[in-house]
Amino acid sequence: MVQTPPTAAELGLMQGYPAPPDKRVTQENLLDPPNNRWAFQHMRELMATAEISRGNGPVHALPERRRDLSDLSFTAGDGTRRTVAEMLALSYADSLVVLHNGELIDEQYFNGMGPASQHQMMSVTKSFVGTLALQLASEGLIDEDALVIDYIPELVGSAWQDATVRHAIDMSTGIRFDEVYDFGEGDVARYGIASGFRPIPEGWSGPRNLEELLPQFLKEGNHGEMFHYVTPNTEVAGWIIARVTGKPVSQVISERIWSQLGMERDAYMIRDRIGMEMAGAGLNAAARDLARFGQLLLQDGEWHGQQVLAPEVVATIRGGGDREAFARGTTEYGPLWEGWSYRAFWWHTHNAHNAFTGIGINGQWLYVDPTAQVVIVQQSSYPTADQPDADDVCIPGFHAIAKELMG
Amino acid sequence: MVQTPPTAAELGLMQGYPAPPDKRVTQENLLDPPNNRWAFQHMRELMATAEISRGNGPVHALPERRRDLSDLSFTAGDGTRRTVAEMLALSYADSLVVLHNGELIDEQYFNGMGPASQHQMMSVTKSFVGTLALQLASEGLIDEDALVIDYIPELVGSAWQDATVRHAIDMSTGIRFDEVYDFGEGDVARYGIASGFRPIPEGWSGPRNLEELLPQFLKEGNHGEMFHYVTPNTEVAGWIIARVTGKPVSQVISERIWSQLGMERDAYMIRDRIGMEMAGAGLNAAARDLARFGQLLLQDGEWHGQQVLAPEVVATIRGGGDREAFARGTTEYGPLWEGWSYRAFWWHTHNAHNAFTGIGINGQWLYVDPTAQVVIVQQSSYPTADQPDADDVCIPGFHAIAKELMG
Repeated sequence: MVQTPPTAAELGLMQGYPAPPDKRVTQENLLDPPNNRWAFQHMRELMATAEISRGNGPVHALPERRRDLSDLSFTAGDGTRRTVAEMLALSYADSLVVLHNGELIDEQYFNGMGPASQHQMMSVTKSFVGTLALQLASEGLIDEDALVIDYIPELVGSAWQDATVRHAIDMSTGIRFDEVYDFGEGDVARYGIASGFRPIPEGWSGPRNLEELLPQFLKEGNHGEMFHYVTPNTEVAGWIIARVTGKPVSQVISERIWSQLGMERDAYMIRDRIGMEMAGAGLNAAARDLARFGQLLLQDGEWHGQQVLAPEVVATIRGGGDREAFARGTTEYGPLWEGWSYRAFWWHTHNAHNAFTGIGINGQWLYVDPTAQVVIVQQSSYPTADQPDADDVCIPGFHAIAKELMG
Repeated sequence: MVQTPPTAAELGLMQGYPAPPDKRVTQENLLDPPNNRWAFQHMRELMATAEISRGNGPVHALPERRRDLSDLSFTAGDGTRRTVAEMLALSYADSLVVLHNGELIDEQYFNGMGPASQHQMMSVTKSFVGTLALQLASEGLIDEDALVIDYIPELVGSAWQDATVRHAIDMSTGIRFDEVYDFGEGDVARYGIASGFRPIPEGWSGPRNLEELLPQFLKEGNHGEMFHYVTPNTEVAGWIIARVTGKPVSQVISERIWSQLGMERDAYMIRDRIGMEMAGAGLNAAARDLARFGQLLLQDGEWHGQQVLAPEVVATIRGGGDREAFARGTTEYGPLWEGWSYRAFWWHTHNAHNAFTGIGINGQWLYVDPTAQVVIVQQSSYPTADQPDADDVCIPGFHAIAKELMG
């Protein structure tokens, strides 16, 4: 039997006004477990954010065909039998939403979360940015083969000087960056501070915003040869989107996605100190709304008679990326990721169902299975950024759910 | 002819991604004019905030009986004739909403603002806190005559040690505090930093949150003798509200007001670094929603058959406070304020109509005229905190609007 992890309230986090010092979740300590149990549903209370408005339109109510999937069992990556309930407990799930053929099948909330809760999505944010980049490319506003510096001359002299837009959105830039999730020091720590996600430490002499940070990254290796997961690539993509549209990413997401799909809740983006938004990890949204976006991709970008995304955008995402480049860059990822690829900030499983997914650290998932016509959203507060034990259960678990629903 | 002040966009503020350095509005410079032209509609983009949810209920659409009041003329405090249009231009208005008998009469937006914009309300926040304190008193959760330290023992040794709740909410505590709106140094600067409104300066050794700040204020003079406008009194009241309800003020406002009146927009509160909310100046809200709250007070706390506030709460606010104590504390305020009083964080004009009002620096107003059955909301971005020139026009102007509508 797998124990459900204690909730933020059970842990006493942020209980009392003010909470006692050892139970306070702050911008400094929000990633120290178990503080993320509270923080991931309260990011706007800890930092500056920009609204992603749903507009004034009616909510698109998801038709319901409820079924509790908790007891569905499957074989995890390590060979043990697991149920969906165990998967959710093991992976510190805060929510699970499952759609099949556009109908809401299962919806479970934990740790104080509910349908209105806006949850930190980490790098699932990237998949929205990649989708928008492809959409703007389909409209001729962005050329995937153009150089990044054609749009952002501020990056002359950086790693992106001779990189194309596609190198950035496919994570194949050759760049000196160590994506190790240590927010105490190193590349990710500098990124966290510059992006507004982390406070500026006393005596800090490093970059204080994304405009200062991004030009500092230098080239290492060649572009286009190898998958190399580097979050600042997404910041560059977000910058390009803002430059060509004249609007911050939050507004572009609002106009083109959030106000188009009958979303239930406004969402928001984390923002740095000069108005640049954290395109690599800044999205906070409600579970059902994320599922609606997944459903849009199952419908080839069409939503109730309106073409919200060009069909070729969805086709590109569904097609996946360069599997050889991916293999070259993921030799240490483990067997679960074999045969996968990456394209436009989406992970592609190339499994029997051709499922693809947005993935965020600490257990954020937007999983889309076009064969089974299933969308799975899981939002979590896993104690650590990387979570191989949870991946080992969730990835087979999502496939099992899809197979079960497909019948 | 009075010139309409340039908009944030015309000033180039936050235009471009990122905006050029001299056009960037940041948490550091947001109060330096003209930066507040942009900042007051974008506070959540600059700092940590807590949502005040409107819930999922239907919007209470304000019935409309539209009339443009722009050309209505009246005599300002200095004897000049002014029109409402001139009043709005002179006072850097971002919005004006006028209700009469619950109907929307006039609604004007400037400087990029619209019905969905959430505007910084400064000390109009206090009037919500005062109303809630009275409501909780009417329910027996707070005793106005009890000592502050009966609720907040953390304040033993401070100015509030022998002050009652009523001393705090009526601004008659004897306390050493200089409410001069210099956010660079002095009492207000320390408050701004501790409340989360201002960033922590490099090398700062002062209080970093409201829990650290408030106990540091010391007694000076006697309680209950004189009106002395000291914003930390409201922080103490907010702390008491949170302590007795077990909920932050944002949630109490949501449950008891925002979700009860068919508000159109969520609102939000500025929040410090440990979860204490800026009860003295942290509310951001849409103009129409503020007007709905004013209308609730005209209706003795009743809203569509439901008693949202106890009638005695509204009666207390309508009755005003101690005019002699007010006179003793406002000898330098000027003739416009003669005969006024202050009660439960509301200003009372004691004019011919017994109008009362919430007032915030830089031109925020929630003006309620029970004789004319008129509510006037004005949100502004006046260049300076104190604005005697604008007060001199707005206060007579609001009365003129009320008289005109009463007929």
